[in-house]
Amino acid sequence: MLEKLDLSRKVGKADFKKAKDDLDLRLAALQRRAKDLKIPVIIVFEGWDAAGKGTLINDLILPLDPRGFNVHSTLPPSQEEALHPFLWRFWPRTPARGRITLFDRSWYRRVLADRVDGQVKGRTLQQAFDDITSFERLLADDGNVILKFFLHISKAEQKRRFDKLRKNPATAWRVNAGDLKRHKQYAKYLAATEEMLAKTDADYAPWTVVEAHDHRFATLKIFSTVVDALERRIAALEPKAKPKAAPARPLGRSRCPAAPVPEALQASILDNVDTSLAIDRDAYRRQLKRKQNRLRELEHEIYMRRIPVAIAYEGWDAAGKGGNIRRLTQNLDPRGYEVVPVAAPNDIEKAHHYLWRFWTAMPKAGHITLFDRSWYGRVLVERVEGFCSEAEWKRAYREINEMEQHLTNFGTVVLKFWLQISKNEQLRRFKERQRLAYKRWKITEEDWRNREKWDPYKVAVEEMLFRTSTPYAPWTIVEADCKWHARLKVLDTVIDAIEKRTKA
Amino acid sequence: MLEKLDLSRKVGKADFKKAKDDLDLRLAALQRRAKDLKIPVIIVFEGWDAAGKGTLINDLILPLDPRGFNVHSTLPPSQEEALHPFLWRFWPRTPARGRITLFDRSWYRRVLADRVDGQVKGRTLQQAFDDITSFERLLADDGNVILKFFLHISKAEQKRRFDKLRKNPATAWRVNAGDLKRHKQYAKYLAATEEMLAKTDADYAPWTVVEAHDHRFATLKIFSTVVDALERRIAALEPKAKPKAAPARPLGRSRCPAAPVPEALQASILDNVDTSLAIDRDAYRRQLKRKQNRLRELEHEIYMRRIPVAIAYEGWDAAGKGGNIRRLTQNLDPRGYEVVPVAAPNDIEKAHHYLWRFWTAMPKAGHITLFDRSWYGRVLVERVEGFCSEAEWKRAYREINEMEQHLTNFGTVVLKFWLQISKNEQLRRFKERQRLAYKRWKITEEDWRNREKWDPYKVAVEEMLFRTSTPYAPWTIVEADCKWHARLKVLDTVIDAIEKRTKA
Repeated sequence: MLEKLDLSRKVGKADFKKAKDDLDLRLAALQRRAKDLKIPVIIVFEGWDAAGKGTLINDLILPLDPRGFNVHSTLPPSQEEALHPFLWRFWPRTPARGRITLFDRSWYRRVLADRVDGQVKGRTLQQAFDDITSFERLLADDGNVILKFFLHISKAEQKRRFDKLRKNPATAWRVNAGDLKRHKQYAKYLAATEEMLAKTDADYAPWTVVEAHDHRFATLKIFSTVVDALERRIAALEPKAKPKAAPARPLGRSRCPAAPVPEALQASILDNVDTSLAIDRDAYRRQLKRKQNRLRELEHEIYMRRIPVAIAYEGWDAAGKGGNIRRLTQNLDPRGYEVVPVAAPNDIEKAHHYLWRFWTAMPKAGHITLFDRSWYGRVLVERVEGFCSEAEWKRAYREINEMEQHLTNFGTVVLKFWLQISKNEQLRRFKERQRLAYKRWKITEEDWRNREKWDPYKVAVEEMLFRTSTPYAPWTIVEADCKWHARLKVLDTVIDAIEKRTKA
Repeated sequence: MLEKLDLSRKVGKADFKKAKDDLDLRLAALQRRAKDLKIPVIIVFEGWDAAGKGTLINDLILPLDPRGFNVHSTLPPSQEEALHPFLWRFWPRTPARGRITLFDRSWYRRVLADRVDGQVKGRTLQQAFDDITSFERLLADDGNVILKFFLHISKAEQKRRFDKLRKNPATAWRVNAGDLKRHKQYAKYLAATEEMLAKTDADYAPWTVVEAHDHRFATLKIFSTVVDALERRIAALEPKAKPKAAPARPLGRSRCPAAPVPEALQASILDNVDTSLAIDRDAYRRQLKRKQNRLRELEHEIYMRRIPVAIAYEGWDAAGKGGNIRRLTQNLDPRGYEVVPVAAPNDIEKAHHYLWRFWTAMPKAGHITLFDRSWYGRVLVERVEGFCSEAEWKRAYREINEMEQHLTNFGTVVLKFWLQISKNEQLRRFKERQRLAYKRWKITEEDWRNREKWDPYKVAVEEMLFRTSTPYAPWTIVEADCKWHARLKVLDTVIDAIEKRTKA
C-alpha cells in the first residue's frame, strides 16, 4: 500500500506557520497535563535513511519541557546487548509514569534491518512479531500512550538526498557504505516494511505513515497525531472535568465521529489514483472474451485442486460493482460460484457478532464466493454513520485481518477490490440514473445523502486500505471511471492470483 | 501440572444436596437476567473419554429454561465441514445475544485429537493456537462470557470406567476402538492438553480444570464457576442497580479480593504435595557435595556455550529460600552468577511497569541469575494484599507467560521453584526464630500477619501454578519440610534442565 501514497503533498509556508504555532502551544500544555495525570508516552520513529527522522524528532521536542522527556537513539546492539533477548535493551528505556520517551528507531530493527540481512527469518521472525505485539500490548494495558511513525520517502527521493549530502564536503560523511547498500535494497526493505505495518498495527499502538518529502507536511502530520492522541487520552481520564465541552459538530455529520487528524493530513491513497484510465470498446470486447474464458478454465482447476476463493467488492455508490461482478461471472459454471449481496444486517444477524453472517457464507474448498459489499461495512458505513462505537470499528481492523489470515491459512485465495470513481463521475452517473427510466430504481435519497458524506467516507476508506492491506489478503484499487477498464483489471487480478496459487 | 492435581477429592451427599439446591436456583435466575441484559454465554466442555462430559452437561442444563440455550456436540468434521477452515463450523453455533451455547467438545479438537493424530503440527499447530486465541478474544470483546472446562481423570480411572462399561452388555457399545486407542495414547494426549491449557488460557476465556473422579465434586465445581462468572458479568453491567449491596467482607481480609469459586473447590495441587519427604544427614552431605560439583562444571559449560539461566524462587515465609539459594551457589564461580533479592518496589520501580525491574536484572547469555522472590509477586502478594486491581493480576498470567516465552525464544533456561511447607512446619519455624537470638531478625509482625492469610495466599498460589506452568518454563514444586531434601531437589532440577539444554 505504501507505493500508493501521494508523496508529493505539500503545505505552504503561511499555512504551516499558523497551524504549527497552535500545535506548539497545545503540545506544551498537553505534556504538563499528561505529567499530572501520570500518563507515560512512547513515540517511535522508524523510516528510510535520510527521511528526516532526526530533524523531525528535534522539531517535536522543541515545544516540550526538557525535564519531561528522553530521546533514545537505537544503534545496532552492543556486545553486551547482543547477549540478551532483543527487547531487553528497550525495557529500561520505557518511560516512567508521566514521562515521554521518543525512540529514534526501535525494537522494529528486529523485523527490518535484521530481517533484510537474513539474521531473522522463519520461526524466529514470527516470534519477533509476537514478542513485539505482546510488549506493546502490555505497556498499553499499563497506561502507556504508544504512537508509531513511519517516515516514507521514495527511492528516487532518497537518492536525491544522498547525492546532495555527498556533494557537500561538510555533509558527505553522513552517507556511509551501509546507507548506500540499504538504498540498493530499497525494494526488500519496502516489502519488509509492508509486512511490519500489517503485523504490528494495533488499536492500542497504531502506525501512522508520514509522507516525508515535504518537511512542513510531515511536521504537521506528526504534531497533529501526537496532539490528538494525548487530547483523547486526557479527555478519557478526566471526563468530569469537561461538562458539556463536546465540540460543536458541523451539520450533516451528526453521528460521524470526528476524524482523529485533520483530513488534509490523512493518508492520501485515493487522491493518487488516476480514475480516468480507460480502454476503447474494441480492445475491451476482445480482451473481455479472452479473460472470461481463461477464468472459466481456472474455475475448473480450482475445483479439481480444492482451492477456495473469496472476493470482496467495495466501492463508492454507482462505482459499477454490480456490472463488474456480472462480467466476472458471465462465463462461469454456476455450480462453482456464488454471489452474496450484502445489505444492512437483519435482526438475527444483529444479535450476533458482525462477522457471523460472513463466516457462514465463506466459500468451501474448490468454490468461489463474490461479496457485493462485505465485512468491511464495519469500518465504512458503520463507522461513518455511527452504527458502532469507535472502540468497535478500531478493533475491527485487527479482527478482520485475523479472519482473513485464518482463511488464507486454510488455503483460501482472498481478494479485495475497491472501485474508485471521481466525485464528478459519481454525479454524472446519479443524474443518468434519474434521467433513464430503466436505471431509476438504482438511485435513492440515501445515495444522495451518502454523497454528502464523501469526505468522512474517504477518511474511512483510506484508513481501511491502509490497515487491512496485508501480504496474504491485499487490496486492489480499481480505477473505475471507465467501467471497461475496471472490469478487465478485476479479471486480470483474479486470474493472476489464482494462477499464482495453482502454480505454487 | 495436571498430574499434580488431587483427583481423589469428594463431596458428601448431604453437603452436595444443600449446595446444589442453592446453585440451581441462582443459575436459573442468572439465566433470566443474562437474557434481559443480552449477554451471550459460551461454555466449552473438553476432557478425557468417559470423564462424564455428557452427564455433567445434562446436569448443568437441567435448571435452565430450555428456550434459552443450545447444546452442540462436536463430532469429527463432516465432508462438507472439512472443506472449510476449522473454525467455520463453529461460527454459526455461536450464541445470539442473551443465549447460552454449551459445546460438548469444540474447536479444541484441532489441537488435541487432530494434533495427536499427526494431522496438525509445526506451523499449522501454531496457527491453530493463534486462530483460537483471536476467535475467543473477538467474541469476548463482543460481550460473550466464555468458560472452558477440562474434565480430568487419571489413566487408571479411565480404564476402570471403560472396563465397567464393557462388562455390561447394555453399555459395551459405548466403548469403541477409538476410545481404546486414545486410552493407550493417554500420555500423548496429556502432553497436548498441558500445552493447550497453557497457550489458550486467557483472562477473557479462562480454563477451569475439573477433578472429575467424583461426580458430585465435579458438578459443584462447574456450577460454582458458571454462577460466579455470570454474577460478576451481571454485576459489572448493572452497577447502579445494586447500591451498597457489596457483600460484607470477613475481617482480616479487607483488601483481599474474594476467591471466584469456593476455596474447597479450587485446584488442589498443594494439598497433594507430600511435604514430609525427607533424607538423612549422611546421604544429604554426600549428595550435596557431588551435585554442587556437577553444577560448577555446568556453570563453566553454559558460559562457553553462552546459555543464560534464570531461576525464580517463591515459597511460603520460612520455607527456606535463602538457605536453598546458598547451597545452590556455594560452589559456583561468583563471576558467573548473581542473586537478586526482591522486596517491595521502590518509588522509581513503582513508576514503571511491574516487569520493568525484573527485565533489567535478567541474565545475559552465559550467566545465571537467581531471584529470591520474583515477578510472581504480582499474582501473589500484590493480588492478595490488593496492591493491584483484579484486572491487573488477571492480565499478569499472560504477560508473564509471554515474557518467559520471549526469554526462552532467546535460549534462556527458565526455572521456577515453589517451596512448599506445611502450615505446622511454618509455625514450628516461626517459633524457633523467636526463640533463637541469632534467628530473631528473620521474623517480623508481617510474617504473622501473612500466616493469617494462608488460605487466600493458597488460592493465589494454586492459580499461579496452574496458569503459568508452561512447557517452556515449568514450575517445580519442592517439598520443603526437610530442607535437605528441598536443596537436593532444586539442585537436581537445575542440573537436569541445564544438561538437557547443553546436550540438545
